[in-house]
Amino acid sequence: MSTLQQARWPRPELMGQLGIELPILQAPMAGAGGVALAAAVAAAGGMGALPCAMLNSGQVLEQIGELREQTNGPVNLNFFCHQPAPADPQRDNAWRRRLQPYYEEYGLTADAAAAAPARQPFNETMCELVEQTRPAVVSFHFGLPAGELLARVKDAGCLVISSATTVAEAQWLEQHGCDAVIAQGYEGGGHRGMFLSEDLSTQIGTMALLPQVVDAVRCPVIAAGGIVDGRGIVAALALGASAVQLGTVYLLSPQAQISGLHRRELQQAGDNHTALTNVFSGRPARGLMNRIMREAGPISDTASHFPGAGVPLAPLKAEAEAAGRVDFSSLWSGQNNRGLRALDATQLTQQLALEALQCLQGLGVSR
Amino acid sequence: MSTLQQARWPRPELMGQLGIELPILQAPMAGAGGVALAAAVAAAGGMGALPCAMLNSGQVLEQIGELREQTNGPVNLNFFCHQPAPADPQRDNAWRRRLQPYYEEYGLTADAAAAAPARQPFNETMCELVEQTRPAVVSFHFGLPAGELLARVKDAGCLVISSATTVAEAQWLEQHGCDAVIAQGYEGGGHRGMFLSEDLSTQIGTMALLPQVVDAVRCPVIAAGGIVDGRGIVAALALGASAVQLGTVYLLSPQAQISGLHRRELQQAGDNHTALTNVFSGRPARGLMNRIMREAGPISDTASHFPGAGVPLAPLKAEAEAAGRVDFSSLWSGQNNRGLRALDATQLTQQLALEALQCLQGLGVSR
Repeated sequence: MSTLQQARWPRPELMGQLGIELPILQAPMAGAGGVALAAAVAAAGGMGALPCAMLNSGQVLEQIGELREQTNGPVNLNFFCHQPAPADPQRDNAWRRRLQPYYEEYGLTADAAAAAPARQPFNETMCELVEQTRPAVVSFHFGLPAGELLARVKDAGCLVISSATTVAEAQWLEQHGCDAVIAQGYEGGGHRGMFLSEDLSTQIGTMALLPQVVDAVRCPVIAAGGIVDGRGIVAALALGASAVQLGTVYLLSPQAQISGLHRRELQQAGDNHTALTNVFSGRPARGLMNRIMREAGPISDTASHFPGAGVPLAPLKAEAEAAGRVDFSSLWSGQNNRGLRALDATQLTQQLALEALQCLQGLGVSR
Repeated sequence: MSTLQQARWPRPELMGQLGIELPILQAPMAGAGGVALAAAVAAAGGMGALPCAMLNSGQVLEQIGELREQTNGPVNLNFFCHQPAPADPQRDNAWRRRLQPYYEEYGLTADAAAAAPARQPFNETMCELVEQTRPAVVSFHFGLPAGELLARVKDAGCLVISSATTVAEAQWLEQHGCDAVIAQGYEGGGHRGMFLSEDLSTQIGTMALLPQVVDAVRCPVIAAGGIVDGRGIVAALALGASAVQLGTVYLLSPQAQISGLHRRELQQAGDNHTALTNVFSGRPARGLMNRIMREAGPISDTASHFPGAGVPLAPLKAEAEAAGRVDFSSLWSGQNNRGLRALDATQLTQQLALEALQCLQGLGVSR
């Protein structure tokens, strides 16, 4: 890896602050990421991330412990920090009524929907855990936590980053203490980090968002959305990014924890068409188009507020997946998803960095 | 401009074929482009384009004559080639009923809507004109004309290019004879070139579309959508483009023929929020959000088929604009529209190319 280690990347300051050797951050991806993926990316010199949004504090502690046995590299702990919506039983009932025909199709009764997927916002308990474990980076999705909690995270010596989907969000994040901002373009898979507006037409492509964010903030900017190879990394660097955050590219790696069906759908050569949908959680997220998105969405005015929309879908998903179907599964994916590589995540991270260097050379750069 | 003339651009083959010195094509922009803009871009060494979709053949001939007096550079004649929709008086009536409250607000009667904005698809007459004038390039929007007409354009020695908004469209265009394909990302302003699907969720960002198109076709690819500076040009080159096509960046140049109100809205420092809308023509196009988009769209199931939707809007637009309001005006703009430069289009084109060279140098390139 001597070529990689000798490489001089543009704007290396953020890499220095983060303690990484390559300008590549793994997107946390709650549900797909975990210890194995974070360790593999860290082993390559990138930044591994542990998604904590669907874990309790015991699980987070356990995973940090496991990860630290596998790598000395810096760790990014990722949390959601949404404002929980007030209870809205009327809307929840409407959503269940909307799904009732599917329950009948599968011979399910209403009480099949019981366990809620726990997606807790960052809180006192998690903050204590951060103070105790002092990860290099704490990243947030859907804005930032309350000022008091945020101050404690920063006092613990953690760098704080969060996602902006508009210029206004990037400015807000910098003003509220972010050390770096992720510009999450429209192309990106999974949940949009949007938090200042619910209007989807504010969501703009990486090619437009990234340079406008770079011009609007002083802190380093990390590019996300539509980047799956060295060409994309160089494009992001050209547009002013200090690093990239990649998610979809890792989904076929053996370290990703997605289902075999999700893997199969991503590998199919045919339609790779995605859409933003709120039917799986109540918030807009990008995934491969499937039956429930087509029939009840992709954006539904009825879907329960975040994160409740997935609750009544869970038994349908289980039944359909048992029959080999993805009709009710969230198949998160970005828009750049043809020919994804089923490679070990360490190898893949190094290959992506080498490709970027080769792309720079192809443009006339010698390093 | 010695620096520019000595520059070695990546993938120069297309520039050679087109006869241009800079990898910059001006987007035709029916309604905003014209002789002055095309001549100014050509004078800088870029490719000027004459939008012909709203002209009759006499006007096209006249404009070609004027342009050739002003430049020896190659010319790109641009035509629409949509399939005209069958007459649908029921839908037209529904659209007029939808707009009726605005007519009442302005004290207009139904017969105020009379003149249809003429947007004719490429036809026999225009084909003869191409054979007679033999422009270097003929470009199409909304696919390609019938095989027989296309063959005549190619026999006249013209290079044929058209816009693809999906990988499938790019492959279709190459298979049907395009010499180069424009990958039009979601960020772009004005009409989407989409022609194989009407599903807006197929429309993907430049960062995702461009490399997937580059991998899917053998012909050169021109990048469009979200590019307004040298950084964006370099990003497109990194992703595999041979050149870029730029529209929004020219809208504030003195050579652009947009209204003073449109210019004012683009220059306002405040909300630069755009959306895809079909209310102005019947086909999806990107423009700054305004009243009619918010209230009747941005996508309306009622709007008359292309190009008829604009007919009953015309008198409302005229009344509102006379009062200094843009409530009913199509304010075409791409998503990357902060800090657009009000510069002469020749100067601007050269400045964009110089910026791109500087950006390459910043990445470590020396040329």
